[in-house]
Amino acid sequence: MTPEGIRRLLEEVRDGSIPVEAAAERLARLPFEDRGDAVVDHHRAVRTGFPEVVLGEGKSAEQIARIAAEIARGGGDVLVTRVDPEKAAAARALFDELEHRPEARALVRLEGPPAPSGGPIAIVTAGTSDIPVAEEAALVAEIAGVEVARIDDVGVAGVHRLLHRLDEIRRAVAIVVAAGMEGALPSVVGGLVAAPVIAVPTSVGYGASFGGVTALLGMLSSCAAGVTVVNIDNGFGAGYAAALVARAVRGGGGR
Amino acid sequence: MTPEGIRRLLEEVRDGSIPVEAAAERLARLPFEDRGDAVVDHHRAVRTGFPEVVLGEGKSAEQIARIAAEIARGGGDVLVTRVDPEKAAAARALFDELEHRPEARALVRLEGPPAPSGGPIAIVTAGTSDIPVAEEAALVAEIAGVEVARIDDVGVAGVHRLLHRLDEIRRAVAIVVAAGMEGALPSVVGGLVAAPVIAVPTSVGYGASFGGVTALLGMLSSCAAGVTVVNIDNGFGAGYAAALVARAVRGGGGR
Amino acid sequence: MTPEGIRRLLEEVRDGSIPVEAAAERLARLPFEDRGDAVVDHHRAVRTGFPEVVLGEGKSAEQIARIAAEIARGGGDVLVTRVDPEKAAAARALFDELEHRPEARALVRLEGPPAPSGGPIAIVTAGTSDIPVAEEAALVAEIAGVEVARIDDVGVAGVHRLLHRLDEIRRAVAIVVAAGMEGALPSVVGGLVAAPVIAVPTSVGYGASFGGVTALLGMLSSCAAGVTVVNIDNGFGAGYAAALVARAVRGGGGR
Amino acid sequence: MTPEGIRRLLEEVRDGSIPVEAAAERLARLPFEDRGDAVVDHHRAVRTGFPEVVLGEGKSAEQIARIAAEIARGGGDVLVTRVDPEKAAAARALFDELEHRPEARALVRLEGPPAPSGGPIAIVTAGTSDIPVAEEAALVAEIAGVEVARIDDVGVAGVHRLLHRLDEIRRAVAIVVAAGMEGALPSVVGGLVAAPVIAVPTSVGYGASFGGVTALLGMLSSCAAGVTVVNIDNGFGAGYAAALVARAVRGGGGR
Amino acid sequence: MTPEGIRRLLEEVRDGSIPVEAAAERLARLPFEDRGDAVVDHHRAVRTGFPEVVLGEGKSAEQIARIAAEIARGGGDVLVTRVDPEKAAAARALFDELEHRPEARALVRLEGPPAPSGGPIAIVTAGTSDIPVAEEAALVAEIAGVEVARIDDVGVAGVHRLLHRLDEIRRAVAIVVAAGMEGALPSVVGGLVAAPVIAVPTSVGYGASFGGVTALLGMLSSCAAGVTVVNIDNGFGAGYAAALVARAVRGGGGR
Amino acid sequence: MTPEGIRRLLEEVRDGSIPVEAAAERLARLPFEDRGDAVVDHHRAVRTGFPEVVLGEGKSAEQIARIAAEIARGGGDVLVTRVDPEKAAAARALFDELEHRPEARALVRLEGPPAPSGGPIAIVTAGTSDIPVAEEAALVAEIAGVEVARIDDVGVAGVHRLLHRLDEIRRAVAIVVAAGMEGALPSVVGGLVAAPVIAVPTSVGYGASFGGVTALLGMLSSCAAGVTVVNIDNGFGAGYAAALVARAVRGGGGR
Amino acid sequence: MTPEGIRRLLEEVRDGSIPVEAAAERLARLPFEDRGDAVVDHHRAVRTGFPEVVLGEGKSAEQIARIAAEIARGGGDVLVTRVDPEKAAAARALFDELEHRPEARALVRLEGPPAPSGGPIAIVTAGTSDIPVAEEAALVAEIAGVEVARIDDVGVAGVHRLLHRLDEIRRAVAIVVAAGMEGALPSVVGGLVAAPVIAVPTSVGYGASFGGVTALLGMLSSCAAGVTVVNIDNGFGAGYAAALVARAVRGGGGR
Amino acid sequence: MTPEGIRRLLEEVRDGSIPVEAAAERLARLPFEDRGDAVVDHHRAVRTGFPEVVLGEGKSAEQIARIAAEIARGGGDVLVTRVDPEKAAAARALFDELEHRPEARALVRLEGPPAPSGGPIAIVTAGTSDIPVAEEAALVAEIAGVEVARIDDVGVAGVHRLLHRLDEIRRAVAIVVAAGMEGALPSVVGGLVAAPVIAVPTSVGYGASFGGVTALLGMLSSCAAGVTVVNIDNGFGAGYAAALVARAVRGGGGR
Repeated sequence: MTPEGIRRLLEEVRDGSIPVEAAAERLARLPFEDRGDAVVDHHRAVRTGFPEVVLGEGKSAEQIARIAAEIARGGGDVLVTRVDPEKAAAARALFDELEHRPEARALVRLEGPPAPSGGPIAIVTAGTSDIPVAEEAALVAEIAGVEVARIDDVGVAGVHRLLHRLDEIRRAVAIVVAAGMEGALPSVVGGLVAAPVIAVPTSVGYGASFGGVTALLGMLSSCAAGVTVVNIDNGFGAGYAAALVARAVRGGGGR
Repeated sequence: MTPEGIRRLLEEVRDGSIPVEAAAERLARLPFEDRGDAVVDHHRAVRTGFPEVVLGEGKSAEQIARIAAEIARGGGDVLVTRVDPEKAAAARALFDELEHRPEARALVRLEGPPAPSGGPIAIVTAGTSDIPVAEEAALVAEIAGVEVARIDDVGVAGVHRLLHRLDEIRRAVAIVVAAGMEGALPSVVGGLVAAPVIAVPTSVGYGASFGGVTALLGMLSSCAAGVTVVNIDNGFGAGYAAALVARAVRGGGGR
Repeated sequence: MTPEGIRRLLEEVRDGSIPVEAAAERLARLPFEDRGDAVVDHHRAVRTGFPEVVLGEGKSAEQIARIAAEIARGGGDVLVTRVDPEKAAAARALFDELEHRPEARALVRLEGPPAPSGGPIAIVTAGTSDIPVAEEAALVAEIAGVEVARIDDVGVAGVHRLLHRLDEIRRAVAIVVAAGMEGALPSVVGGLVAAPVIAVPTSVGYGASFGGVTALLGMLSSCAAGVTVVNIDNGFGAGYAAALVARAVRGGGGR
Repeated sequence: MTPEGIRRLLEEVRDGSIPVEAAAERLARLPFEDRGDAVVDHHRAVRTGFPEVVLGEGKSAEQIARIAAEIARGGGDVLVTRVDPEKAAAARALFDELEHRPEARALVRLEGPPAPSGGPIAIVTAGTSDIPVAEEAALVAEIAGVEVARIDDVGVAGVHRLLHRLDEIRRAVAIVVAAGMEGALPSVVGGLVAAPVIAVPTSVGYGASFGGVTALLGMLSSCAAGVTVVNIDNGFGAGYAAALVARAVRGGGGR
Repeated sequence: MTPEGIRRLLEEVRDGSIPVEAAAERLARLPFEDRGDAVVDHHRAVRTGFPEVVLGEGKSAEQIARIAAEIARGGGDVLVTRVDPEKAAAARALFDELEHRPEARALVRLEGPPAPSGGPIAIVTAGTSDIPVAEEAALVAEIAGVEVARIDDVGVAGVHRLLHRLDEIRRAVAIVVAAGMEGALPSVVGGLVAAPVIAVPTSVGYGASFGGVTALLGMLSSCAAGVTVVNIDNGFGAGYAAALVARAVRGGGGR
Repeated sequence: MTPEGIRRLLEEVRDGSIPVEAAAERLARLPFEDRGDAVVDHHRAVRTGFPEVVLGEGKSAEQIARIAAEIARGGGDVLVTRVDPEKAAAARALFDELEHRPEARALVRLEGPPAPSGGPIAIVTAGTSDIPVAEEAALVAEIAGVEVARIDDVGVAGVHRLLHRLDEIRRAVAIVVAAGMEGALPSVVGGLVAAPVIAVPTSVGYGASFGGVTALLGMLSSCAAGVTVVNIDNGFGAGYAAALVARAVRGGGGR
Repeated sequence: MTPEGIRRLLEEVRDGSIPVEAAAERLARLPFEDRGDAVVDHHRAVRTGFPEVVLGEGKSAEQIARIAAEIARGGGDVLVTRVDPEKAAAARALFDELEHRPEARALVRLEGPPAPSGGPIAIVTAGTSDIPVAEEAALVAEIAGVEVARIDDVGVAGVHRLLHRLDEIRRAVAIVVAAGMEGALPSVVGGLVAAPVIAVPTSVGYGASFGGVTALLGMLSSCAAGVTVVNIDNGFGAGYAAALVARAVRGGGGR
Repeated sequence: MTPEGIRRLLEEVRDGSIPVEAAAERLARLPFEDRGDAVVDHHRAVRTGFPEVVLGEGKSAEQIARIAAEIARGGGDVLVTRVDPEKAAAARALFDELEHRPEARALVRLEGPPAPSGGPIAIVTAGTSDIPVAEEAALVAEIAGVEVARIDDVGVAGVHRLLHRLDEIRRAVAIVVAAGMEGALPSVVGGLVAAPVIAVPTSVGYGASFGGVTALLGMLSSCAAGVTVVNIDNGFGAGYAAALVARAVRGGGGR
């Protein structure tokens, strides 16, 4: 039952063409979902500026192209994550509005250039192998119109490299830190800044790194306050959360 | 070498009472740490309003009282977490400026009432057993001057209870969600709001809950964007991160 | 907004004392939760016969007594699980409508004797140490009015003992099987019956039993079709699920 | 020793052509297995309508074709699960009674159309990636003659989508819920329905999803009563268990 | 139906007091279990000399005394494992035929001195902390009448101590090796002997020893052929298996 | 220093061509290793009848062929395990004395037919997927001259199939039981026989089977006494241990 | 056979009172162990200065006192680790040469003051809770005569504190770093020094720290070269290894 | 700000061309990093002789060639680890100063032959499959100018082989021991020598070896003092740490 439908029902009540009791009953059966839609619309309006996100992993090029085209038809922005070059090419052959961003292993389709919406956020990596994850984080922030500063290769085994870049990092309203192996960088960064730190463990390392689990556990056990953590290699999630903070700071509130 | 010391050295250079070469050498030997202190002072100024935090677990009442008294001597606020009632009483007997907050299993010593610094943040729990963790989160936020809204017992097995409280939750600039067992609440909340969600897994549950590990993994694997996670039962860390966001929003930036 | 409130609003529309537009707007703001309640009422009606369940573990006797009294005030049945004898005595001293069932480590408060609602279900244990978990399962079924047949101590290392009792087991519409150690009994039972088997791993065993994890994994990996699994030591959950089946069978359908 | 053989032996006893002692000894040596067969026949009769199931994974096309042909020779239905398209084609080339069901990654060979035997069961998925598992569940139910309702893509990060479809779900006598990542959907569904919920964790997700383990643990730790769980990606097992319930409901009992 | 009952039935057939058809039907209904008993009796006869074993852990003194008294009434030997001194005293106060063996944390009740039945087996420990587990192994072997040689404190960090005792070890027909920490001793022993080695990981060690799991995994991964493994701290199981070998060697076969 | 060398030295002492002191010193420096060799020779003699075993996994065809040829040159038997067909063909092209045993994924090179040395051992599998592991066990036993009885496809979900074959199993002096998934078969077999049972978990299964870990843990937690366990898929180790028992039984002792 | 025994045998050979053949045979049977003792003596001489170490955990005061007295009788130094105050007092009551070192949870009995043997080594802690582990490391080094520098409370969340103390750390020939939680300190230290770093994970932390496992994995995954790791809380092992290095440096070689 | 820059600033102060206050402010803003560089330079000088190390795994041939060329331009030595033959060939085609060391799976580019800097270190392997890890350890030591002794294939299941080579091992100032499976060799070696032992678990083995985890845990739990551990397959790290010790011994100190 749409808002329009409700209005029509009320008019019938007003006009006496339907008794109160019957109308009340119909409203009582008003399915949950219609209210749910209202919630969602409200919600989506608030989140304007963020793209719809599609996990490319485990989907075929055909599925990706079809889903992206559907969203695009509605005028929406799309971000497809975790797409390897072959699949990206195949999907683009099917839906040519998709743009390939190989450094972030992503496809994007934007209605237009994003409107500036705050920042900067800093995206910091421990080593060069963490860069693809950072690129994914940067991409989602950029699509949301948030300014991004990149600080790469400042891992803790050479702490001076980090100190070199500290001023840049401190300018950020939120900081994404991507690190593999022992995942210690967010603790060190968290101890040096006042902004919230969002830690992304990466699957970089071997043996006792367990594909990012060690970095994940280390970040969760961080001795520095103000550090929160996302899933292994989840650059998208980290960039998204940092962008939410940046937009809240600019907007002066959450909603 | 303090800033004062540097200035004195420069005056001696200016006055010719020390040759440039000798002064340069002394500055070259200027230990790292003095610069480090400068960094820290800067840093601490930024974070003003947050207390020093002491993990009470594994420390004796004597140690707690001594550390708290030292910080208090410097005029600082102190928050001692994870203190059971007996230890709390014993520590207060030794240092009576400590105030007991049993619902948060904490001791606090504040120089004065915190200055309002933003918010509100929402702190949401799935069940009544998650409340102590939420209290810890609320306490650190309150000490930092951040307004807190509490929404309790809205776990996912009764999703209508959550929907009842949605408007309150949506007013927050950042949302802490504490849940044990399967830890699903942050995903549901994250799908309904536009503010960053900080998920705290709690050690509530038994068997395959593994003392909070299942909730932790579930939160990290959340299908909702914008959710970040802290350690099991780390109410303090979640409240701290949420307060950082609230203060950034109020201040219009991170620094 | 209650159904009564909706009716009043419609009467105002009918009487022209409120314009359609204003009424539509109020209905549009009709909070989610009121619909949610409707859902819940519907839901609760369907599940009539099951008690409210309170996990006693981690709650004080005072909390248990207070919660039970509240539910009782509304005329509801209560089942408090995982209560040791001391806590049970303390809670009963505070709220004497609670009845202690020590063999199931539970407290119950029933409005009256449960109406028969189907069955039988069989509850089968591998060894005597699994009996407390089976008692918990039996209790929840009995409260729901479902007939229970108990078959104890028929573990797989003496398969003839199981075969002795097969006829009893086969009479059941659903079968709960509790086993610790290697947790193999559900596979053997599942291969001998046509009813759904609900397996409960118990924390019986030591070393590589890992407090029930081995039994849990074994049951999940069962080579017998028709076996589903609940959490370690979750006798309540198994009994509840089996009773749901029994009631559906009697009722001829789910709702 | 067949029943016929026993009768002949008794006739010899009656006729005095064999002494009691010798006959008793022969009966005492009556091998276990003959009784076992009786059990099995009884058992199989009860389960009529379910196909023989062959796990295709780890078997060659030749093995699959040979086993299927053997069962078919006896007039039985066969369901081969987890067969990729290449292997399916190769097996069909060898035994052309096999029908390929690619959406369920399965091969089937049915003696005839299944006789209706109850339902409906609902099969619910959190996301599109969970669909292959749901298809496997649907296929086994359909072969058993059980009616199936499919509700896809109603994951918890958009809870309104689930509420939209609630009426359909509530019509079911048993509900299969397939979800990956944090595996929260069964908890939410379980809180909204009165039928037994059979949860299937899927290997959808990455990092801390651990190939379905996180979803599995979350489902086992579910805060909703009436939820039972099967192995990761075990659509077959879930569909089988749900069909057992549906047939019991229709038949009015388990046997 | 007992063998006696079968004989009586056959006599009735012979005597014509029951028709063949009726007798055949009764035999067809002959429950599985009676055959099962026959199996068991056969089985138990073979294993003569081994006691009934009761896991004392998790049982009360009352339960232990009652179960032991029941078995004793039937003339059987009893071994109760994992009994601490308090429980042992309490159980003996209730059933004074129980003898306490504190070094093996066990209670025993024997009908008489065990008849010699083979050996020797060797029981080897890496360190003094492994001795209680070895004592349990030795006790079950001794009850079974198997000769035992004990070689203690020959851990791999002092390999000469092991070499000192090699001749004794080599005399054994089966060797139990108990070790904690890295659990390396069975590999070294296995490389030096020709008899089967049964490895028992013990929960000795800390940190990365994980309560015996590291020793368990190490033993399973042993590079020496002929090594098999039992559960952590399962001295009973190791001693039992070694005694089975010893008795087979003496008897010249398994049955 | 060889035995010959020792004898020569003693002759020199006897002849006075070397003083006692100097000879004592030389003997004192007698390197450990020479004694070690003696040990080994003794050891190897005892184990006569077993082949040298080479793990083929992770070795190239060239390495396999070279190692096998070296052992063959010394007149020894060789068993190369875990060789896929391609590698087997390549190795045989390089060293044509190797015989391929594809069903056991092995290569063998025997000096002659093995001399009968005892048995039978039984090798039992739960399902057809466990057969390659069983073949490996059978092969090593056969090479050692031990008679083998094979009982396949008697998994616990159809316990009557196992009971059918019980007499065959009971004839064995040692029993190897290979099972994947929940790994329950050794417990059931162990409860029905008097011979030692050597359990081999196989990597058969998916999801919560964790590549054989669940079966492994289940076997270690077995409620049946007399069951010992080897590594996942370690058919070789199980067959070797069973053959050691068989030879001990025949020989009447270990050495 | 002692060296004395060998000499006597040779004299008999020389004197002709025993034939060469018989003597050769006796030498051939010369048990392994005697050579082993030689090895051990040699070994022990090299390690002079290190005490005998007894793990106090899991031993009674009586056992500790008895073992310590035995070693003392031989003139040896003893270090008993992991002794709580009560046990320490009880053990000292039984053997009063034991000195209690409560800060290291240890008992020591030294023949005399240790001779200086090199250093310094640095022992560095991340937080005050890591100090007991550091004390244990320091104690074993001091007993071995190695000079120790202590640097406490320089965890990575305040990296300036570490930089303050860098010069002290750099003077060391080997560095022990003890840290709990995320265990990041060894990586940072390892990047700043040229000496070998021995990392000790401590069981400090909660939740995802898993009693030191996270710190352990982090240290093993360290991105800094030259870092090696010991078991959780194994201060003794770390101090021992560092002292071995210090003594090698002083001695100019390993032996 | 370089030292030169500081001197210039001081001259301006001396000359009065800049006021003290302004100079103090500039020095106060003196970025952290400049001090950091000093630290690093100092550090790198100390570590002279070690190459820059690049983890080849997860990098393309192009990336490897580019990074190596950059380091070479600065006159530095490079060691690229974990490079398979194809990638090695491709990288060498792009930068021909790289030398392939296939046995160590590495590429090296050295400015000239390394200057001798101490040793020997011993590198010991349990089996031939551990050799690639040992080669990596040997290569880094050789590049650092440290003498290496290789002792291969002396695993604990044939302890005499180890004893044969003991004298060689004892000559080393530090010992690297690589072992897979149960990882027991370092314990045995550690009990026989006085030098520090650096244990490298290798991913050799299957099933319960868990890709090296069992060996890792076993080494960490070692009962031999003086054993430290590096990550699974981390031959590089072990060789590096051993070389650090060797250089310290030669140099008589750490710095």
